[in-house]
Amino acid sequence: MKITLAHGSGGLSTGELIDEIFASRFSNPVLDKMEDSAVIPGAGTIAMTTDSFVVDPVVFPGGDIGRLAVCGTVNDLLMRCARPKYLTCGFILEEGVDSELLAEVVTSMADTAKEAGVIIVAGDTKVIEGNGGFYINTAGVGFVDDGVSCESANCKDGDVIIVSGNLGDHHAAILSNRMHIENNIASDVAPLNDMVFNMINDGVNIHALRDITRGGLGTILNELADASGTQMDIYEEKLPIDKEVEGFCKILGLDPMYMGNEGKLALVVPAEDADRALNIIRNSKYGESAAVIGNVVSGSGVVMHTKLGGRRGIGVLVGEGLPRIC
Amino acid sequence: MKITLAHGSGGLSTGELIDEIFASRFSNPVLDKMEDSAVIPGAGTIAMTTDSFVVDPVVFPGGDIGRLAVCGTVNDLLMRCARPKYLTCGFILEEGVDSELLAEVVTSMADTAKEAGVIIVAGDTKVIEGNGGFYINTAGVGFVDDGVSCESANCKDGDVIIVSGNLGDHHAAILSNRMHIENNIASDVAPLNDMVFNMINDGVNIHALRDITRGGLGTILNELADASGTQMDIYEEKLPIDKEVEGFCKILGLDPMYMGNEGKLALVVPAEDADRALNIIRNSKYGESAAVIGNVVSGSGVVMHTKLGGRRGIGVLVGEGLPRIC
Repeated sequence: MKITLAHGSGGLSTGELIDEIFASRFSNPVLDKMEDSAVIPGAGTIAMTTDSFVVDPVVFPGGDIGRLAVCGTVNDLLMRCARPKYLTCGFILEEGVDSELLAEVVTSMADTAKEAGVIIVAGDTKVIEGNGGFYINTAGVGFVDDGVSCESANCKDGDVIIVSGNLGDHHAAILSNRMHIENNIASDVAPLNDMVFNMINDGVNIHALRDITRGGLGTILNELADASGTQMDIYEEKLPIDKEVEGFCKILGLDPMYMGNEGKLALVVPAEDADRALNIIRNSKYGESAAVIGNVVSGSGVVMHTKLGGRRGIGVLVGEGLPRIC
Repeated sequence: MKITLAHGSGGLSTGELIDEIFASRFSNPVLDKMEDSAVIPGAGTIAMTTDSFVVDPVVFPGGDIGRLAVCGTVNDLLMRCARPKYLTCGFILEEGVDSELLAEVVTSMADTAKEAGVIIVAGDTKVIEGNGGFYINTAGVGFVDDGVSCESANCKDGDVIIVSGNLGDHHAAILSNRMHIENNIASDVAPLNDMVFNMINDGVNIHALRDITRGGLGTILNELADASGTQMDIYEEKLPIDKEVEGFCKILGLDPMYMGNEGKLALVVPAEDADRALNIIRNSKYGESAAVIGNVVSGSGVVMHTKLGGRRGIGVLVGEGLPRIC
C-alpha cells in the first residue's frame, strides 16, 4: 500500500493507517485508549525533551530512523540522569511512502522502546505532498530522582573527561551508505540506559553527561566548557576510533571530532571517580570501547594535545558536516 | 536571511539560528539552560500528547502555524481536564525559509504560549532540502488533579452534547485563502483553557471532552459513540454555524460536520449540568456561540435529525476533506 493524502485526513483512512501500522506495534493500555492525550503516573521532578529525525536514508547499516527516533530522545533524557518513561511520536509522511517500509520502521521503534524501557503514549500522523520520504518527531518524559543534578555547568577544574566508545561511527555509516561505498562500518545507534544507571546505582558522582550527536565531540566539549567556565584539555592519542572508521576519515579528509554518533556519551566526573566510572561503562552494554580522553582545567575553550606533541584549539563545528545525519 | 542546510548542522550556524530566532522569544529559566533535556517540577498524574503541524499556508486569516502548534497541543491536554504546563517544539525547516517569516511565527508561538499559560522547555531544529516550507511538532505535558477522569468512554445514555461555538471556521478560512477568495472568514484557532477551567472550578461533572479538529464533529462524535457504546443524536437546526461560513459551504458543497476547527470543543455532560455548562462556556473566552446540539442515547453511531424532519446517519470522514489543514 502507498500512503496518500487521505491518510492524513483524520477520518476513515487515518483510522485504518493507525490500526494497521501503529496501534498493534505500539500497543499498551495508555495508548490503546486513543484519547486526545495520555493520562499517566507522574513524578515530583521530570525531565522533558524532543528531537525530530530527518535522516536520509531511513534505513542504514546498523539501524533505521525508527531506532534513531527512540534512542535520540531516550538518550537526551538520560543525559540529565532521568529515568526515561514515556515517548510521544509524530510522523510526517510524504505521499507515496510504502506502508511495508513504514511498518518495518515502526516495528524497529517498538523494539527499541522495549529495549530502552519506555512506552509510546501518544502519536500523530500528518501527510504532505512529496515523494515517499518521511520524518519522525519524538518527545520524551523521564523521572528524576530527588537530589540528582547533572548539567553542563557542573564541570570543575580537575574533573576527568570520558567518552563511552568509538567516535564517528554513525556519521561514517550514513556517509558510506550515501556514497555507495561498501565497508563494515555500521551506525552505533543505541539507548544508553544501561551504562548511565549502572553508574548512578554505583554512586558515581556524575558532574555532566552529553550524548555525542550532531556537531560531534568538538562542539559538545565547547558547550560544556562555555556552560561551566572551564577549559577542556583532551589528548588525540586517547580518542577511541574504530580502525575502519579512522581509515575512512583519512581518505575523505574527515575529522572525527566533528562527526556525530547516536549511541555514545561524553562524561565528566571528579578524578577520584574516573577509574570506577570507566570500568562500569566498559562493562555495560554499548560501552566496551570507553576511554578517558582528557581533563577539565581552568581556562576556556577546548584544547587538543596532538599526537605530534602540539596543541590545537578545537572550535565548534562551522558549516554543515553532513546534512540529514539524524 | 535565508535558512541553509548548515543551520541544521548542530554547530555554529545552528547556534546562531537558535540565538537569533528561538532563544530570545521563548526565553525562560528552564529553556535557557540549553541542556539535552529540561528538568522541571512534575505532578502525581500527568497528561502527555503530541501533534505535528504542516498547515499550508503557514500564515492565514486568524492565525499562523505557530499559534496553531501551541493551541493544538494545549487543547489536547485540556481535553483530559489536565492543566497544560510544558511544551516542547521541533522545527523541520526546508532550505530557503525566510528568517523573518520564521521569527514572526516564533513570536506568535511565544505569545500564544503566554496566553495558554505554558512554557516551552525544550526544542530542536532540523533543516532539509526543499523550497522554503516548514513544519512544527509540539508535545505537551499537563498536570491532572486527583480524582479527575475525563475520557470518551464516560459518555452515558441521557447525557447532553454541547459544542463550544461555530463549526468549520478554520477549514473555511484555510480553503478561502488557498482559493484566493476574499471574505471575512477567519480561523478560530485558540487555546481553550478559560472555558475548561471555568467548568472544572464550578464543579461541572465533565464526562467527555474532545476538540473538533481534523475529521470534524462527525468523526469525533463517532469516536465518542464507539468508545462509550452509546449513540449520539444531534439536531441539524441546533448546530452553530457562522452565516458567512454557511454560505461558503453551500456554494462549494461542503459539509460543516466534517470541517475542522482549531478552537472549539465538543462536551458531554449529565443533563442536570447542561444549562450550567452552557452558560459557563458562553461567558468564557472563545465560547460566545456555544450551543446544546443533542443527546447521548442508547444505541450506536451518530444520527442527525435534519431540518426537514428526517434522520441521517453520520459516519466518519471518508477520504480527505482538505489536505494540510493543520
